[in-house]
Amino acid sequence: MGNMKINITKCLEKKEKPSTEGIAFGRNFTDHMFIADYTEGTGWHDHRIVPYQPITLDPSAVIFHYGQTVFEGLKAYKAEDGSVRLFRPEENFRRMNESCDRLCMPEIDEEEALEALKTLIELERDWVPDAEGTSLYIRPYMIATEPHLGVSPSLEYKFMIVLSPVGLYYKEGIAPVKILVENEYVRAVAGGTGAAKTAGNYAASLKAQRVAEGMGYSQVLWLDGVEKKYIEEVGSMNVFFKIDGEVVTPALNGSILGGITRKSILEMLRSWDIPVAERRISMQELVDAQRDGRLEEAFGTGTAAVISPIGEFNWKGETFSVNGGDAGELSQKLYDELTGIQTGRKEDPFGWVTVIEEKEAIRQ
Amino acid sequence: MGNMKINITKCLEKKEKPSTEGIAFGRNFTDHMFIADYTEGTGWHDHRIVPYQPITLDPSAVIFHYGQTVFEGLKAYKAEDGSVRLFRPEENFRRMNESCDRLCMPEIDEEEALEALKTLIELERDWVPDAEGTSLYIRPYMIATEPHLGVSPSLEYKFMIVLSPVGLYYKEGIAPVKILVENEYVRAVAGGTGAAKTAGNYAASLKAQRVAEGMGYSQVLWLDGVEKKYIEEVGSMNVFFKIDGEVVTPALNGSILGGITRKSILEMLRSWDIPVAERRISMQELVDAQRDGRLEEAFGTGTAAVISPIGEFNWKGETFSVNGGDAGELSQKLYDELTGIQTGRKEDPFGWVTVIEEKEAIRQ
Ligand SMILES: Cc1ncc(COP(=O)(O)O)c(C=O)c1O
Ligand SMILES: Cc1ncc(COP(=O)(O)O)c(C=O)c1O
Repeated sequence: MGNMKINITKCLEKKEKPSTEGIAFGRNFTDHMFIADYTEGTGWHDHRIVPYQPITLDPSAVIFHYGQTVFEGLKAYKAEDGSVRLFRPEENFRRMNESCDRLCMPEIDEEEALEALKTLIELERDWVPDAEGTSLYIRPYMIATEPHLGVSPSLEYKFMIVLSPVGLYYKEGIAPVKILVENEYVRAVAGGTGAAKTAGNYAASLKAQRVAEGMGYSQVLWLDGVEKKYIEEVGSMNVFFKIDGEVVTPALNGSILGGITRKSILEMLRSWDIPVAERRISMQELVDAQRDGRLEEAFGTGTAAVISPIGEFNWKGETFSVNGGDAGELSQKLYDELTGIQTGRKEDPFGWVTVIEEKEAIRQ
Repeated sequence: MGNMKINITKCLEKKEKPSTEGIAFGRNFTDHMFIADYTEGTGWHDHRIVPYQPITLDPSAVIFHYGQTVFEGLKAYKAEDGSVRLFRPEENFRRMNESCDRLCMPEIDEEEALEALKTLIELERDWVPDAEGTSLYIRPYMIATEPHLGVSPSLEYKFMIVLSPVGLYYKEGIAPVKILVENEYVRAVAGGTGAAKTAGNYAASLKAQRVAEGMGYSQVLWLDGVEKKYIEEVGSMNVFFKIDGEVVTPALNGSILGGITRKSILEMLRSWDIPVAERRISMQELVDAQRDGRLEEAFGTGTAAVISPIGEFNWKGETFSVNGGDAGELSQKLYDELTGIQTGRKEDPFGWVTVIEEKEAIRQ
């Protein structure tokens, strides 16, 4: 650990906490946020927690013009015993630094970032909801702030963390979604930024998502940008298929984001001696498996929904159902195990959970 | 024209104008800027010119997380007679709307945007430099401002215009550059956002540019993202080759930005009865032409440098020189003609120039 000192300025008046019943994702924020500034030559400085408030930037800040930014997404959960838990947060800060490398942005100190996050969450402990399936969504991000209309890496940055209480993703158990296989738009290509968690990938995805929603599908299945044959991701999630008893997910090929849920599921399945494969998988292979009755389950994985079963997919105008449109047994089991570990309802044999120490001194 | 009313708030104290001698690109800004706000349901409102000043946004504004933003770049020139001129500004606002469509952003009223730009520039008339090769760089842009951590189009936006005086790109005539053909990183791919002027494309390009500069090259030549065979762009410019007397430029295939300089050059060459072709061109074809002595000239084209001759390129470790490393005759002629029209030194047979009317009422 470095010698980071976090200056804390508390808000004068606390906001009213929204009910988590039917709460919209990412629209409510807690009372405080974390900020640190970076200046080329000096490094990171002025680590601080301040009341959640607007930020002020030059209209020519690099972020507005050239999109130099990375972000992360993870969650804090409240267990029955009142403890607040993070799920593999060190993986998020490691991935954030990998994203920074691709975007020519400065690294953060991963241990300091985790320390800052723990301090912020301890201060906001009362904001972590405890109803079934709720959590506090955590958004660490970095933006390029130097005023410069030239295409070159910014010399100034802000690293920030904001927190948002979020509700249950599915009201009654996990609900399968209908997805549209995207044949026109591309999310990412090898040599591009698909393996980094950076804004431009999400901006690029909006149009296809809008078209899919207009056709009654809730997500897009992305194919590779080169041949438009191989499966990459679904929406903002990684994707898994159970075929002939084997669980297959696209290998990390440079255009797919390496999800932490994906990684955890692979580790879990291996520990259960269920055969898994990370490899290329084509739409044709998927369709053949579906037609032969060998496609047993399909599901997306990510921090937001954890497991999102796929009940039906549409490829080139033809629709294919998966497991009769129902959530599969393995999808359900993975969801139960993962959320069980995250919320402390189940044992954590992998050592994935970090319990946040109570520190009266911070909250007083 | 709609019934836009622009509210003008003038700055109390004017900045000192920097010398344009050796001025860095995009680091100095004028006294005022234009802003309009968009709210879903209401449309564009509160068109205003205010002193150049920081803007204040919610830390969860969509721009910071999902990169929903587009921009444009054009220039105002001061002619010898003191008149201030814009080069095809309507093309920029048309392209901006095309970019907006790709990014699921609201359209601007192109005529109103041009009117706003003219008003802003008239107010800043004294900021348009008049030394040879200098100009006032114009940056219209739109950013997504709604506070929402969900991947869906923002319901609020800001459209802004900022102005920056810029100096001569080349000190003594146009100077050829050395470029590196990029074989690892990809700028854009068909189905992606390459044909739109949006931040993510530029963020994606930083890493390759950094590697190239480290090897002593000033720009990257981008190949297609699918086969890495076909030539797309050079740096943030379109690219042209003169081979066997014919001028060839990559066809607009969906991953290339349709440059306004590119379009103007094609129109100019056609008017001169010089054979031109917009088609696919592979690196192998280029190298074969160079080896056979049929590659006469190569140059990049864009608003910033107008024409940027390529004196040498490196492909897979082998270097190839173009026209003995000197600027070619056609490159020089195109540069002279285009900058001549832009600055009023030459006739404007194409009707490309818009002279900004003097309006004492605005400047008083
Ligand atoms: C593009 C993309 N793929 C996959 C994921 C899943 O990653 P994780 O499991 O770490 O949440 C995410 C988001 O979180 C994502 O944005
Ligand atoms: C990626 C890219 N290609 C080409 C161009 C050239 O376009 P224009 O001639 O309109 O300036 C630009 C920039 O302006 C650009 O950013």
